[in-house]
Amino acid sequence: MSQDPDPYTHRQARLSAALQRTGLEALALNPGPSLVYLTGLNFHLMERPVIAIFAPQAAPTLVMPELETAKAAALPFPAQVFPYGEDPSTWQEVFKRAMQAGSLDGRQIGVEPTRLRFLELRFLEGAAPAAHFVSAEQPLAELRMCKDEQEIAHMRRAVQIAQQALQAVLPQIKPGLTERQIAGELTLQLLKAGSEAEFPFAPIVSGGPNSANPHAAPSDRPLQTGDLLVIDWGAIYQGYISDITRTFAIGPLEDELAAIHRIVEQANAAGRAAAGPGVTAEAVDQAARQVIEAASYGPYFIHRTGHGIGMEGHEGPYIRTGSQLRLQPGMTFTIEPGIYLPGRGGVRIEDDMLITPQGAASLSDLPRGLTHLE
Amino acid sequence: MSQDPDPYTHRQARLSAALQRTGLEALALNPGPSLVYLTGLNFHLMERPVIAIFAPQAAPTLVMPELETAKAAALPFPAQVFPYGEDPSTWQEVFKRAMQAGSLDGRQIGVEPTRLRFLELRFLEGAAPAAHFVSAEQPLAELRMCKDEQEIAHMRRAVQIAQQALQAVLPQIKPGLTERQIAGELTLQLLKAGSEAEFPFAPIVSGGPNSANPHAAPSDRPLQTGDLLVIDWGAIYQGYISDITRTFAIGPLEDELAAIHRIVEQANAAGRAAAGPGVTAEAVDQAARQVIEAASYGPYFIHRTGHGIGMEGHEGPYIRTGSQLRLQPGMTFTIEPGIYLPGRGGVRIEDDMLITPQGAASLSDLPRGLTHLE
Repeated sequence: MSQDPDPYTHRQARLSAALQRTGLEALALNPGPSLVYLTGLNFHLMERPVIAIFAPQAAPTLVMPELETAKAAALPFPAQVFPYGEDPSTWQEVFKRAMQAGSLDGRQIGVEPTRLRFLELRFLEGAAPAAHFVSAEQPLAELRMCKDEQEIAHMRRAVQIAQQALQAVLPQIKPGLTERQIAGELTLQLLKAGSEAEFPFAPIVSGGPNSANPHAAPSDRPLQTGDLLVIDWGAIYQGYISDITRTFAIGPLEDELAAIHRIVEQANAAGRAAAGPGVTAEAVDQAARQVIEAASYGPYFIHRTGHGIGMEGHEGPYIRTGSQLRLQPGMTFTIEPGIYLPGRGGVRIEDDMLITPQGAASLSDLPRGLTHLE
Repeated sequence: MSQDPDPYTHRQARLSAALQRTGLEALALNPGPSLVYLTGLNFHLMERPVIAIFAPQAAPTLVMPELETAKAAALPFPAQVFPYGEDPSTWQEVFKRAMQAGSLDGRQIGVEPTRLRFLELRFLEGAAPAAHFVSAEQPLAELRMCKDEQEIAHMRRAVQIAQQALQAVLPQIKPGLTERQIAGELTLQLLKAGSEAEFPFAPIVSGGPNSANPHAAPSDRPLQTGDLLVIDWGAIYQGYISDITRTFAIGPLEDELAAIHRIVEQANAAGRAAAGPGVTAEAVDQAARQVIEAASYGPYFIHRTGHGIGMEGHEGPYIRTGSQLRLQPGMTFTIEPGIYLPGRGGVRIEDDMLITPQGAASLSDLPRGLTHLE
């Protein structure tokens, strides 16, 4: 599949429509996946503020450091650039000129709540004191939730890379290896298999009691016979990510630990089977949750069933109680039920799903049944 | 050197003193290096808000998701935890209870401008409508700028790892290899040499005309004879980073490109020689800058001379025009002058410096002279 050199102009037009539907007059974005999606521009969030302003019927406006302007010059669409120098005391004035050029004072301006920082917000407020800055979470989610063919191809590749990396690591796992050693080897294998280096998240490798903490950081604890071992990992390809979890047994397991693995496997299957176009996110959560509740482990399933994935590790649609959002073709998200028994061990099985016109497909397909590693 | 299990209580006491000196009544921090520094708590910034509130004479207060509370339970100091569940509509109330417990409404509350997001700010404002949220950049910089012995040991190790990785890659570099291939191999070697996987930044590998862009992303352009090749890379060890740049020649160079390498090498040496306790950041910038200006390349040195490093890729002290900050023992920062000739090529030579009681030491010591790779 060849890369479209300018998917951005079309995406900016879709943004304008989404803004108008939600009553916003402009969007002020700082660097992150939404900015990449709309412009291709990639910056690291550091101490220098960078802001792109999108308003219907105007070219995007960029406020950015002088030393980054080569990036703006290479854009495949017109943009109005307001560069600033190295002295922070001059930056407010540059923001002011940019906001005045777009007549943005007094307007309803959307921002990205999980990205925009106090740093940029104060410069924007200083430049347009009568403007109202409000969450644009909904129009941005609308814009990015349904993936196009190229985005889906990138995600499929990110899943393949992740699966290939895990398969290279599994034969090496045995009692005595530490979680950190396994995580290091998995990271190496992700790069070898073709992942980009800016991982969406570092692999979670948690054994024995640590596996009961869903967000454990890999420790120096050596694996022991009788441990559950949770591996939650992902790759990134062309900016799109994968996010998969499998849980293994190190040698023979206590009966209850083997039993919770079977229950979570059934909950994962029920969640996958429930997903499809027109189904609510809540219904998918419920399908997985009911299996665990029916087995009396409800209180030990302490998180939602899943979250959207794409350019971010967590994005819409969130697969949780209370969400009436109806799934649509092109949406991609995880299904990852789990049971966590404090002090003893946990199980999570996570797949990456794509809603299709007919139903739903799992992009990830590594075996989900309990595998004993020794 | 053994790890201190609780450096945090002492750091929190130093924070209280720094807040009082700057007239702040509390600090509201979200996840990031400052939170790790003060508590050891590590979270990924995602869609769930996490806030720690520090006020003199009170135990730290944490607002966080229920599913992360195991992390709070493991802290070596007392903390007051306000956990919330999976339904976002319940979060504002939990923030309100936390702010009320600390009697924080109406107070002057510091925040970290480059970390705090619109997401958390709006919850904080909703919970304490009469509070003033202001930048705590200065007390936080004061707190973290001078590194202790253990921090310096971690940074030395991060430098060693980075240098070892580059030395493993250099013999493989030759015309025809792409920037992206070299960046991938360098990333692999960083992990093999012992870097943690959450890199502070992905390596910059930029050849030929791309090297004239200080923040270029590695491209698919193959190296050619006559190219300058800038490699800007770093490792991370125990959360502390290194950040080094060297510039190489692919085969013979045009005279002017070789000449700018010599000038930048002299500017780097002048900056290193000028650094020491009591010297202003501006004086170090000037020492490096004058060498480049004297050679008539001033307009092509388009950034400041350096920035602090430690737990972040960019932090105080910034080595720039106008900064009257006086360097003190324990401060760590880069010296990285550069000359960038648009369309032709650029040179940057960057070292990681430590201010000592007697002067300044470069933690990085790879050769700085022009090396020809073929």
